[in-house]
Amino acid sequence: MALLVQKFGGTSVGTTERIEAVAERVARCRAEGHDVVVVVSAMSGETNRLIGLAHDIMEEPVPREMDVLVSTGEQVTIALLSMALHKRGCDARSYTGSQVRILTDSSHTKARIKEIDEHRMRDDLDAGRVVVVAGFQGIDEAGNITTLGRGGSDTTAVALAAALKADECQIYTDVNGVYTTDPRVVDSARRLERITFEEMLEMASLGSKVLQIRAVEFAGKYNVPLRVLSSFEEGEGTLITFEDENAMEQPVVSGIAFNRDEAKLTISGVPDTPGSALRILKPVSDANIEVDMIVQNVGEDNKTAFTFTVHRNDFKRAQEVLRGTSAEIGAGEVGGDTKIAKVSIVGVGMRSHAGVATRMFEALSNEGINIQMISTSEIKISVVIDEKYLELAVRALHSAFELESAGTQEQS
Amino acid sequence: MALLVQKFGGTSVGTTERIEAVAERVARCRAEGHDVVVVVSAMSGETNRLIGLAHDIMEEPVPREMDVLVSTGEQVTIALLSMALHKRGCDARSYTGSQVRILTDSSHTKARIKEIDEHRMRDDLDAGRVVVVAGFQGIDEAGNITTLGRGGSDTTAVALAAALKADECQIYTDVNGVYTTDPRVVDSARRLERITFEEMLEMASLGSKVLQIRAVEFAGKYNVPLRVLSSFEEGEGTLITFEDENAMEQPVVSGIAFNRDEAKLTISGVPDTPGSALRILKPVSDANIEVDMIVQNVGEDNKTAFTFTVHRNDFKRAQEVLRGTSAEIGAGEVGGDTKIAKVSIVGVGMRSHAGVATRMFEALSNEGINIQMISTSEIKISVVIDEKYLELAVRALHSAFELESAGTQEQS
Repeated sequence: MALLVQKFGGTSVGTTERIEAVAERVARCRAEGHDVVVVVSAMSGETNRLIGLAHDIMEEPVPREMDVLVSTGEQVTIALLSMALHKRGCDARSYTGSQVRILTDSSHTKARIKEIDEHRMRDDLDAGRVVVVAGFQGIDEAGNITTLGRGGSDTTAVALAAALKADECQIYTDVNGVYTTDPRVVDSARRLERITFEEMLEMASLGSKVLQIRAVEFAGKYNVPLRVLSSFEEGEGTLITFEDENAMEQPVVSGIAFNRDEAKLTISGVPDTPGSALRILKPVSDANIEVDMIVQNVGEDNKTAFTFTVHRNDFKRAQEVLRGTSAEIGAGEVGGDTKIAKVSIVGVGMRSHAGVATRMFEALSNEGINIQMISTSEIKISVVIDEKYLELAVRALHSAFELESAGTQEQS
Repeated sequence: MALLVQKFGGTSVGTTERIEAVAERVARCRAEGHDVVVVVSAMSGETNRLIGLAHDIMEEPVPREMDVLVSTGEQVTIALLSMALHKRGCDARSYTGSQVRILTDSSHTKARIKEIDEHRMRDDLDAGRVVVVAGFQGIDEAGNITTLGRGGSDTTAVALAAALKADECQIYTDVNGVYTTDPRVVDSARRLERITFEEMLEMASLGSKVLQIRAVEFAGKYNVPLRVLSSFEEGEGTLITFEDENAMEQPVVSGIAFNRDEAKLTISGVPDTPGSALRILKPVSDANIEVDMIVQNVGEDNKTAFTFTVHRNDFKRAQEVLRGTSAEIGAGEVGGDTKIAKVSIVGVGMRSHAGVATRMFEALSNEGINIQMISTSEIKISVVIDEKYLELAVRALHSAFELESAGTQEQS
């Protein structure tokens, strides 16, 4: 008899047939005696259709009206899902963000939740009803409709779970959990039963697009147990949990994340004087280009090389900015490479285990893979390598850290 | 410098191009110095698309959720129109029924407006903004989304005009006004510059589908001057006004309305005793069949014939009910005819002019048209004739009452 918040994304509610399947699952859960609050996204394709209409009219639509427009997408889904629940004899009631009252700030198209009034939901749950809430949307103090930005439905679900002190927030997606790495790259990739919030954050930010990073942060902050499950098959999914719960059993490395979206830029012959890094990076960030990894080596002859990565879409612009900077500060050539990949090992266990980096580098060296850049954090080591070795590197690391079988790493 | 409420229906906002055309018209009106509140329907086709989704899930969708679903249609339009106004440098703000606060009762899918909070609209108007309101929808005391039923956008416009004490409520449609009769039937049909509320009600209820009858009633009740205009061409349209304003110039007959949707049922050999009419009509109304015209003649041999009309869709059911009644009360045969048409002349002027009926019957007789039923009210005379003579009858009456030229009837 738990209180569960269940979130179903656009693909899970993409057709009326799929909405019926979601209703089936929710009704079963209710019949088992659980209290259920369901959060849904717009039917897949609907948000893009609405944005298309807006762009027919103007290139940069007024944000306030954009929110009025796109928030209809989830409103359609909550109505249809509530009908499908009624059809199954399961009493249900739909709520828009405004009706719940999910109070946000007034930053249209990227609002942040400030407060949730849970009393109407609580009344419905007490009356035995399933509560169906439109994800992604809220209302500001002045009564204007706001949206949380793309993927905001995950955030809505976590925020509702926090407000209601739910036992679990379940995010239903098209994958059945979080994997040690991408199963399309490594056959023996294994679903994790648990992963910590910190690891999940690193995995998510590194390109494992299972959950919105904001939702994970939010869940961590408010201690909401989060579970990722599949809408299309049965299974326990992956529970995202708190580190201390099972500290003794933490594996050294939980997963291998990777990312092919980055490009590398190098400026050489940089005068090795204080302020060089600033003079190079400020024009880049002024151009609204986000920088990921940064490496600077000790130089020779008072010259040094400075390397960083950006999103591939920003590569050309970053290169232009950098050429200007090079001329200004009297540095040398600006080199670049878009054919790189970043591979990371992630795991809270590496905090207390020495030699993890060595083991990683050894595995790559054994395969003859050259490491171009290295960057580390407490629970992550990332390397940049030639893109063509990506799959090979991921497989080698997956095997080196024995991720294919659960529970063996503790021995290492 | 008037305060105008302008309503644009589904066809007028059926595409983003058409929404831009509406914005153009509204922005021009605003530039002329008028305060403008715009009420819009869903883009044509959208409401049916949404209803289709609901019917994919269940045959009789839960009314509360149906309202949540279909109210998204107008919400899309208000956002797009507001964007199109901004594009023209015309500050505008959209409101859903819930945001305005259009308070209704809780009769989902056919709610009635109880109260309108005009203060947010007033603030926007004072700040020089155009206010764009979603038609057809409201919210009940408990915060549930309601809809006024099909065509309810006209009612929204009139109700807003009443609440704001607007100078005029302008209903933009795909016709450029109210005509003396259907121009597709009579070439010389003429647009009326004015028509009274009473006449408009008779015309509307008789099948001139320019305006929703509820909206006309509402406008009459709250003294809101109503004007029907075309979205697609320039022109003054038709002003629906109060009788006493120009009483001296009232023509005898303002227009010819007609209706092909009815069917006639006759039960003969009815015992001519008190209570017969009740015994015949009660089972019909118990079956939820609406009856329009009723005629009972003086009988012979203590027997009488009883004739009434119903909507053609209800003909078969009414016939069955009537057969049962006939057996019960010992009446005779139940006859029926679906190939009939009702033609009516409408005009407040006939109150003070004798001989109008005579002139009508003479015109029909001259064409050899047999009258099957007659029914009269203070400002209307209706006859039922064979359907095949409908066009001929309408043309003959249009000519007999000299409707093709304005201002000539007063001499008669």
